[in-house]
Amino acid sequence: MSSASFDETAAAEAQAAMDGLAKPPGSLGRLESLAVWLAGVQGRAKPRVDNPRVIVFAGDHGVARDEAVSPYPPEVTATMVRTFAEGRAAVAVLARQAGAALEVVDVGVRGLDQPVEGVVRARVAPGTLNLARGPAMTPGQRDAAIAAGRRAALRAAADGVDLLALGEMGIGNTTPASALTARLLGVPASMVVGPGTGLDAEGVRHKATVVQRALDRNGPRDPMGALADLGGFEIAALVGCMLEASSQRIPILLDGFIVGAAALVAVRHRPELARALMPATASAEPGHRAVIEALGTPAPLLDWGLRLGEASGAALLIPACRSASALLHEMATLAEVLAG
Amino acid sequence: MSSASFDETAAAEAQAAMDGLAKPPGSLGRLESLAVWLAGVQGRAKPRVDNPRVIVFAGDHGVARDEAVSPYPPEVTATMVRTFAEGRAAVAVLARQAGAALEVVDVGVRGLDQPVEGVVRARVAPGTLNLARGPAMTPGQRDAAIAAGRRAALRAAADGVDLLALGEMGIGNTTPASALTARLLGVPASMVVGPGTGLDAEGVRHKATVVQRALDRNGPRDPMGALADLGGFEIAALVGCMLEASSQRIPILLDGFIVGAAALVAVRHRPELARALMPATASAEPGHRAVIEALGTPAPLLDWGLRLGEASGAALLIPACRSASALLHEMATLAEVLAG
Repeated sequence: MSSASFDETAAAEAQAAMDGLAKPPGSLGRLESLAVWLAGVQGRAKPRVDNPRVIVFAGDHGVARDEAVSPYPPEVTATMVRTFAEGRAAVAVLARQAGAALEVVDVGVRGLDQPVEGVVRARVAPGTLNLARGPAMTPGQRDAAIAAGRRAALRAAADGVDLLALGEMGIGNTTPASALTARLLGVPASMVVGPGTGLDAEGVRHKATVVQRALDRNGPRDPMGALADLGGFEIAALVGCMLEASSQRIPILLDGFIVGAAALVAVRHRPELARALMPATASAEPGHRAVIEALGTPAPLLDWGLRLGEASGAALLIPACRSASALLHEMATLAEVLAG
Repeated sequence: MSSASFDETAAAEAQAAMDGLAKPPGSLGRLESLAVWLAGVQGRAKPRVDNPRVIVFAGDHGVARDEAVSPYPPEVTATMVRTFAEGRAAVAVLARQAGAALEVVDVGVRGLDQPVEGVVRARVAPGTLNLARGPAMTPGQRDAAIAAGRRAALRAAADGVDLLALGEMGIGNTTPASALTARLLGVPASMVVGPGTGLDAEGVRHKATVVQRALDRNGPRDPMGALADLGGFEIAALVGCMLEASSQRIPILLDGFIVGAAALVAVRHRPELARALMPATASAEPGHRAVIEALGTPAPLLDWGLRLGEASGAALLIPACRSASALLHEMATLAEVLAG
């Protein structure tokens, strides 16, 4: 059945066209299903990936300032945002290699009080509050961050973007992502908390304690309530971006665990949105597999042990999406080949 | 220890440089090890993928003419070679999308008596003999096919090619690949024979019988002897191409099962060559996993159920190799970022 997020007719036409190309049916495996997915989301039998865009939302976290949940100090968020803007971070390199534009959106990075060239300014506050002690943000702040994400999707739609790769930057943000995941899936902190970008075993135990304290506050369990209670500004912006981009028929490549947690909120809020999402990379974080199952999307395209975030994994898969769609435009059909 | 095929010093330098970039060490997972591999094979700490090339060797098989081991008639080999040259086959699309040149080499396709524009002519004979009844080729034919492969590698080296994606076309060629694999690994036909591009269960049983008949002839067990006895012209050309390309320090992406069987011959003949090889895609053919284990290479980069051949899987991974090497050229170091 077609929905706002997926056109079954276009997908079926793409599948039929794919089956008629000069190759045994199905012999290109997941590359074929990727083309069919793009067709369904874009709502056209011959999808295009001519104008992909990578968007990275960045924000800081009270819990990272107060509770030592990351081996990196919170100041690194601002430093990395500047490095994105200079085109010298991993995601900047990968976006450039993929022929994709990179948009960096500051939704609440501490220390970026002055505008940074090349960074979209959509600051809600200079970081969230400590989710271990109380709600991370007010409902108004959540809505402001969601609106910032929506605007990013609308800019993309206005520019004719035909594929989005979504990512995030925020030191400590596997902690809110773990807390959100645990609350929405109804599992204890220990089942979802992992090393993030580099905690040792003792660090992981401490982080699980912090997340469990947040869960034990027994805050709201509905997706939007949980988002304000346990999320981050960049996570809320990702939710808003997914909601709007799927309405605008833009296929979305999901980066790892944090983007997956945002997708979980978005899909719990609007289930049909899941059809617009494709997980790019498997995360080493233990909660990611459960998130993917709950989303009901296909399995992640790649399992290369990426754990950087930044949209690095999503950006890496853009060329494969472009190639998948090109098959439908450029390959000979079996009928043409047999006719000689 | 360094060898002709791998420069451990360059690899170690690339690893150290990778660890010093503005990201947690190891956080880009296999993308990092891909860059280090490229450095080791190319023999420079900052590898480049500026000039990748896809080479497809094509040949026909007596066993396909006589024994019904494929759902497709042997004439399809010539048809597909023409489609490659026209730029309208899957591999042509994927090579173009990857920014790679495509070279098609006819080492013995039936029905291509006249030159085809865009196809390198290096014909040994119009197809091999039926390996189920006797040797597929003479030692002289094997050497001619190997020489054709070597010349392709030398053309690549002369043109400054810095990454090769190798593939094949030859209706029925999972049969010689299965026979070669079974003999070199010392296992029965039933353990390596699979559906190829589309046999049903009955077809697979028949194919296994044909392969077992070839094995029961008890031909030579040394790699080059087995290659002449059970191989194909395109498989021998792949062997020659790998031998020369690795000497020329060109990293090689391996396509699926047939290219893997050729790699097995090449590595048994010259073990240190394995370091120059990277399996691009896992094959659904049951023998492929055993081949990868015997090669001692890393696991295939992608497991998307590809079973087309043509170098389609290898071509698909070229952009990831280019991105991996770009990290070493374009990312900021941690020291630079901390210095602000």
